[in-house]
Amino acid sequence: VEGTAERRADTLRAGFVQTVPRFGDLEGNLRRARELAERAPEFDVLVLPELFSTGYAFVDRREAEGLAEELTGPTCSWLRAVASERRGWVVGGFAERAGSRLFNSAALVGPAGEIHVYRKIHLFDREKDLFDAGDAPFAAIPIRTERGTVLVGLMICFDWFFPESARSLALDGAEVLLHPSNLVLDKCQGAMPTRCLENRVFAVTANRSGEDDRGPLRIAFTGRSQITAPDGAVLASAPAEGEATEVVELDLAAARDKHVTAGNDLLADRRPDMYRTAR
Amino acid sequence: VEGTAERRADTLRAGFVQTVPRFGDLEGNLRRARELAERAPEFDVLVLPELFSTGYAFVDRREAEGLAEELTGPTCSWLRAVASERRGWVVGGFAERAGSRLFNSAALVGPAGEIHVYRKIHLFDREKDLFDAGDAPFAAIPIRTERGTVLVGLMICFDWFFPESARSLALDGAEVLLHPSNLVLDKCQGAMPTRCLENRVFAVTANRSGEDDRGPLRIAFTGRSQITAPDGAVLASAPAEGEATEVVELDLAAARDKHVTAGNDLLADRRPDMYRTAR
Repeated sequence: VEGTAERRADTLRAGFVQTVPRFGDLEGNLRRARELAERAPEFDVLVLPELFSTGYAFVDRREAEGLAEELTGPTCSWLRAVASERRGWVVGGFAERAGSRLFNSAALVGPAGEIHVYRKIHLFDREKDLFDAGDAPFAAIPIRTERGTVLVGLMICFDWFFPESARSLALDGAEVLLHPSNLVLDKCQGAMPTRCLENRVFAVTANRSGEDDRGPLRIAFTGRSQITAPDGAVLASAPAEGEATEVVELDLAAARDKHVTAGNDLLADRRPDMYRTAR
Repeated sequence: VEGTAERRADTLRAGFVQTVPRFGDLEGNLRRARELAERAPEFDVLVLPELFSTGYAFVDRREAEGLAEELTGPTCSWLRAVASERRGWVVGGFAERAGSRLFNSAALVGPAGEIHVYRKIHLFDREKDLFDAGDAPFAAIPIRTERGTVLVGLMICFDWFFPESARSLALDGAEVLLHPSNLVLDKCQGAMPTRCLENRVFAVTANRSGEDDRGPLRIAFTGRSQITAPDGAVLASAPAEGEATEVVELDLAAARDKHVTAGNDLLADRRPDMYRTAR
């Protein structure tokens, strides 16, 4: 920014909270998430799962609308309160009402009430019947921490499956991917090392566990929230079942140097003229 | 093609030969590769490693030029002979001389002498001092087999690291990636399931093992040639050391249906307007 010397942070204390929400119990879910967040040691950014306050298995769009909220609603207020109290950034997913539109969104809230919203771009399976797809391109977000500025990127759950998601964020400068999830497939945790490796970024995947049992609609989630490093190493991993809270200190130098050999910078060595981007 | 009914093959018998070449011993390397190829059961396409006839560790461009050849040279002639004799397609890597230019190339040769050449797009480390980078975009190649036509894609070794390589080939219709390699890092074999999963394609990675010991320049290779399926399953895997030959019958239906859920087609669900493709 002109006239200011933005100090870049060298490290970031980043963590996840893995929850087991009860469908529709907004108050109970936020209360329990608060207890879990309070267990976290000091952090610069803490990631909660996708739709962590409502649960996931809406039977139809009307039900999702009924549990949706605006940025002044209970979930974003909760994020603001935790961010302010813990003096760190907090990310979590919520059903976002915006006029007649409904998004599967994540809000990233800072200690001074700063707020950035990401609307899920790749909707999973029957989410297409419930939500509108995100309408703003992937973009890195600079966040100020006590230690300096860090560029983070937001993606939600199924976005991981498309290499363009993490790639877009990395090309825009993101050093750490914040990845609220409600994973039902068992492939993401094994693929995140590749996502991190190919972009030389960190990723914090906050997943839920347990299941939403809505009668005929019953969906189980895979837990195993994970923090992954630019060399593909798994720095933290939660169990498949139950709740968990973890915070890891990330050495951001590993995400800023895109070299994989002395001669290869993974972003500079891309050959866009050689690529197809459409069928 | 207008006026013709191109029958699409339902299956493809695809395999790899893992070699341990001796640097610079073109005649000996081709003779030994022939013995290994002869051990392969019937195949529609057989993949040999990158630079399998010369070895990898050229000390400088001049040495690479001395071992380079044109499409009439000994390596492509070898591929033609094996393809004709075994009545299948054969792929292998060679140093390609084209006027004053030098490429790290792979030739895909058919039983009737058809030939397609791919010039490596992403050069690894000191290959940049030896070769010119490939100048033609990734493109799928239709090959006719006894069972019908199959679309394959060629990429070489380090190309795997860039998700755009496999993505470009899949967007162009490739169902099976043919991937001659001389891998020195230990990450590719673990990442190929993600490459296959995100594009719903098969991949045949033919790697070499052993080392090129050129005095001060000494490079070891990781073997573990691998055939990977669209669901990320590893269908065949060679040992880290030594030679190997494997052929697997691939059920191409798995690569033609891009659905990962009833509601998600992984190529149709891409959102190009939401992606960044440059820094």
